[in-house]
Parts: sequence; C-alpha cells; structure tokens
Amino acid sequence: MSDLTNKKIAFLTSHIGVEKAELESPWQAVLDAGGTPLLIAPKIAPVQSMVGDVDKDATFDPDTTVAKSSVEDFDALVIPGGTVNADHVRADEDSVALVKQFADAGKPVAAICHGPWALVEAGVLPGKTLTSFPSLRTDVTNAGGSWVDETVFHCTANGWDLVTSRNPDDLDAFNATLADVFSKA
Amino acid sequence: MSDLTNKKIAFLTSHIGVEKAELESPWQAVLDAGGTPLLIAPKIAPVQSMVGDVDKDATFDPDTTVAKSSVEDFDALVIPGGTVNADHVRADEDSVALVKQFADAGKPVAAICHGPWALVEAGVLPGKTLTSFPSLRTDVTNAGGSWVDETVFHCTANGWDLVTSRNPDDLDAFNATLADVFSKA
Repeated sequence: MSDLTNKKIAFLTSHIGVEKAELESPWQAVLDAGGTPLLIAPKIAPVQSMVGDVDKDATFDPDTTVAKSSVEDFDALVIPGGTVNADHVRADEDSVALVKQFADAGKPVAAICHGPWALVEAGVLPGKTLTSFPSLRTDVTNAGGSWVDETVFHCTANGWDLVTSRNPDDLDAFNATLADVFSKA
Repeated sequence: MSDLTNKKIAFLTSHIGVEKAELESPWQAVLDAGGTPLLIAPKIAPVQSMVGDVDKDATFDPDTTVAKSSVEDFDALVIPGGTVNADHVRADEDSVALVKQFADAGKPVAAICHGPWALVEAGVLPGKTLTSFPSLRTDVTNAGGSWVDETVFHCTANGWDLVTSRNPDDLDAFNATLADVFSKA
C-alpha cells in the first residue's frame, strides 16, 4: 500500500466539464493513501462536473486558485479529463504555466483521458511516452510525444515522472500507479 | 448575393455535442442561397446538439451516413464545431477519410470553432493558413498549419479553398464567405 502521508497533491481543473469519476476517484485514492488532495481552478467558483462529457452532475469547490498556486506548494499534480474541461484548462495560460512548472521542477504528474492536452500546450512532451484518450493521439505525436495504447503508462524520461491513462475504465490502474509513483517522489 | 442553386453541401457531424448555432446557421445560409444542405453522420440516428458546449438542445436527423457518402456526391463540405462533437468527428476514421477526400479533390471546406480538429486529423494542414477556436492553435500549428486570429479566413493554398472561423460570434462572416466561395466552386 502506497503511503502519501504529508504529501500535498494538486488536482487542476477548469470550471466546466471535468469528468466526475476522473476527479473523484483519484482524489479518493490520494485520501486512502493518507495524502492531502487540493482542488485548484482559475477562480474561487464552483467546478461543474459532467458524466460521459454531456450530462451535468455534482459541483466541487476549489481549495485555491491557479494564480495563488506554485509548484513549491505541492508534491505532485493530477490532471483529470472531460473533453470540455481539458479544452478549457489548455486555454488558460496560468494553468498551462503551472503544469510546466511541475515538469521543470521534476515533480510527478498524472493525467488521464483528455487531460494530456495540457501537456501538449505546455510543450513538455518531446522525449516523453504516454497514453491518453485515443482522439489525442495525433496532437500528442505532433507535439513530440510517443503515444502508446496502454491501460496505464509510467514514463520517467527527462527527469520527471508522468503517469497517464486512457479513460475512466482505466481508473483502478491509474490510481494505483499514481499513488505508488507519488509516494516515492 | 451568392447563388448555390444545384449545389449539394455536406454538413459533417458526430452524434453528440455539435454546437447548435454552428450547424443551424450555415445550414440556413446554404438554403437562403438556393443550395441543398445534407447532414452526414456515422449512423442513421439522432444528432444531439448542445448550446455553449454543455446544455443539450435540439436533435437533428442525418440525411445519410458517412459510409454511404463520397466526395463525388457533394460540391462542398461544412464542419461545425462543439468541443465534444469535434473530438468525436476526429476519432471516426471514415469521417476523417471523407474530409481528406474533399481536400484531395480540390473541393471547398468550411470549418468553424473546434471543427478544424478534423483537418488536423486528416493531415491536410501543411501549407494552409486558418483560424479556429483559440484552444486549437497549438494543435493546428503542430500539424503544419499557420494559425491566424481572424473573424473569417479564406485560404486557397494547395489547390483547395478552406474557409475558417473562430466561434459562433463569427457566424455572419463565416456564412457570407462560405456561400461566396462555394458559389464559385
């Protein structure tokens, strides 16, 4: 069992369209391992989740804003998916800058489904191998990453850990791997 | 006034998440110019539209399927947006192949908002200049296109006309330009 005691784990979303299970399930995995998850979004305003990308579900309250967050405050980063959410995250300059800070600092990042668009936008994929929702394959490849079709993939290239998965069906493997990787960071 | 009499214009969508105005408004513009719009989707099943990407609205019935469609059947192609829709269109191999047929045949294509992801996926952007929803800028650039921030842009490079716009606020300019370009095709 991975131990995340005293580890602060950032969860980065926009305010609309995060896939509910991709936020809640890794969040619970961090809690179960004794870690402290913190929700970061552009504003202190509700984060509207969706199920299957198109049905609105629960809202979540951010713990802090992107502008007030720095990589020094956290041990690792989780980037959930949701097509509309991931499209909004990549369009937010400060959110993308925060993602880049984690890679530059050599701190681990876990991204699932459409979440890896933020990595495309941050320009941190050359030399990295990853998976994602299959529709991102071309964008990932064009951004210099190597795309694989795996339940979960852990890449250690370029001095930082990247854990990626394809979709909500991969969450058990995604959660176990990110907890293991984050516990060693 | 552009004249689209005897012109068949294909509108390509998936079954979920097309931005309603980006389907309805160019459709009406084609009708107003005397043309015949035809809705093409992967299956004979409802096309669920959304407003603002997250609120379900009207459904539309396809006139034919992607598998039964060929570039020879049409004079031009419109690719509406909607984030989830555009993500589904690019993930459908036959839809992407149909888009590529239009470029290869030198027939005009008009794409708006997130619609240009289908052009990224079809690999037809090297040498082309276009606009899109701003979040696609990196994907378009990485796919070899030159991205511009314009209400509407008409590119004639590589022997085929490409008309692109950024979002629903650009629809008046998008419609006028595509009707003009399609009328000369």
